[in-house]
Amino acid sequence: MAQAEFDNQAFRQALGSFTTGVTIITATAPDGTPVGLTANSFNSVSLDPPMVLWSLAKTSLSVAAFTEAEHWNVHVLSQHQQDLSNTFASKGEDKFKNTRLEDGISSAPLIADCSARFQCRNMVTHDGGDHLIFIGEVLDFDQQALPPLVFQQGQYAMTARKPWEEVNISSQPTAPQCSYNEDLLGYLLGRSHFQMLYRMRKVFDEQALEDSHFFALSVMNIQQQLTLEQLNTHLDYTGHSISETDIEFLTSQDLIQQLDDGSYQLTSSGRETSLHHIAQAKAIEEELISELGAGDVMALKLMLKRLITKTDPGLPDLWQAQEQQ
Amino acid sequence: MAQAEFDNQAFRQALGSFTTGVTIITATAPDGTPVGLTANSFNSVSLDPPMVLWSLAKTSLSVAAFTEAEHWNVHVLSQHQQDLSNTFASKGEDKFKNTRLEDGISSAPLIADCSARFQCRNMVTHDGGDHLIFIGEVLDFDQQALPPLVFQQGQYAMTARKPWEEVNISSQPTAPQCSYNEDLLGYLLGRSHFQMLYRMRKVFDEQALEDSHFFALSVMNIQQQLTLEQLNTHLDYTGHSISETDIEFLTSQDLIQQLDDGSYQLTSSGRETSLHHIAQAKAIEEELISELGAGDVMALKLMLKRLITKTDPGLPDLWQAQEQQ
Repeated sequence: MAQAEFDNQAFRQALGSFTTGVTIITATAPDGTPVGLTANSFNSVSLDPPMVLWSLAKTSLSVAAFTEAEHWNVHVLSQHQQDLSNTFASKGEDKFKNTRLEDGISSAPLIADCSARFQCRNMVTHDGGDHLIFIGEVLDFDQQALPPLVFQQGQYAMTARKPWEEVNISSQPTAPQCSYNEDLLGYLLGRSHFQMLYRMRKVFDEQALEDSHFFALSVMNIQQQLTLEQLNTHLDYTGHSISETDIEFLTSQDLIQQLDDGSYQLTSSGRETSLHHIAQAKAIEEELISELGAGDVMALKLMLKRLITKTDPGLPDLWQAQEQQ
Repeated sequence: MAQAEFDNQAFRQALGSFTTGVTIITATAPDGTPVGLTANSFNSVSLDPPMVLWSLAKTSLSVAAFTEAEHWNVHVLSQHQQDLSNTFASKGEDKFKNTRLEDGISSAPLIADCSARFQCRNMVTHDGGDHLIFIGEVLDFDQQALPPLVFQQGQYAMTARKPWEEVNISSQPTAPQCSYNEDLLGYLLGRSHFQMLYRMRKVFDEQALEDSHFFALSVMNIQQQLTLEQLNTHLDYTGHSISETDIEFLTSQDLIQQLDDGSYQLTSSGRETSLHHIAQAKAIEEELISELGAGDVMALKLMLKRLITKTDPGLPDLWQAQEQQ
């Protein structure tokens, strides 16, 4: 437990356990040059009067500009501003070149599209070892409904917020001896997949389509000319496949047509149907975003993508351009 | 944009955009009483010398204890310590009653099972409006591989960390006109579900079982006596169903047996097979946890549970005790 000698890298790493947002702090130097840097050492201090603080390394080239500035602005970055965070964390280049600015109450640069912004009067600076602690009075602030960028253990992150109530799917507490329970990832993925599909079904029913038909039309929406075998290879990941009977049905409904080389493609009516399906899938997703929160759904999708990348058994790339046949 | 009058609630809410970890700060009052409170106003200040800070409301009952203390400890809470966070955020009761403590280098209480801990010497206190800013020198620290608890917009949260590289499933950039793309939640859920199941298949193959047989055995592992109809109701969410032919096959393999009342249940061999399947599902999950990170997989599961709760079309509760028949 005790650190025989104080290990700087281990100390940094332990500090990284404390999750933070990411901010950019800006000011204008006395000569009119805009300065800005990325900091996660921001925090609130006081509500009345409204005050916030942040720390700046004494070795920073911007120390003079910030200590002499009458005002500085704190920008709490959104998920979409990760590149901006990287730009302002680096040295040298013209950081403000591609940064969209807005008019603020002072001369300090005010960056657009942030989760929140605090326009501050530079009140006092305290010594903090190798850093200076800046304390400012908040003169103005604003907030937008943009999911904030998060930093943890030296990595960017997203948050999945915990609801006030615990989330339990079953009304019963799981029996301790029961190894198949609602906390099993495989169960949660299967049930989530099914329930999303279930919400699509009233659209399929309008045209008496089955789940497999929906998946087939979606694949053919991307890959233009497919043999039945190629189609089923692409359908593999859905757990569904298409038979000759299905082909006949979809043809009879004027949704697909066979080409001279034997392959199949969507008819214009088939394309329209498929686009209608995808619009419905997006509408369901939008509804979920409004219920669960945009940042949370982004976090879910990120994790699913990471899971897919890690577990990919070598599925064909649905979006890859077809080779010449 | 400009706040005509300074709106305290809006200010709090804007500050909530800045995500933080959750800490408990502890000290021992001069009379020997342990004091502790939950704070998210913690932050690092300096690496050399190692210094951290946090803020305490001047109205807090613990102000005297902390200002007079020679030492205080900062505990960065883990996901499992949400209850502890709530306890130390409230007033009055004996907060330390059910809290497991360990020996530290000072008399300040040191709480066990945290993501990180910083044992500090109380250096200096600065005025911060309605708060006091405490700055301490870190004398000792430690860290455990426990996913940290996170706070954002007044709610507890988990993080899903973004990998260094962007996650792209397709090798092709999605064509802008292509509305069915790899960012569609429905696609991601379907493919994740399939790929997890795909990893199970080598276990099914040992006994020539199909996906539907796996799901049927899993359900019968929980619900003991089911008619074919009841079984298929519980299988609904898997997108699979069991036919009379499947029943015959599973019976011939000595995995299930029919009871006098016509319902089916697992044989001892069937139970063993199903437990083997579930153990495999857990092994796959453990492998993913080691690849993606325990906190990230927790966040994924939380989001899936929230999605399931929001989209449940009224599926039967698999874990509910059966009614008397």
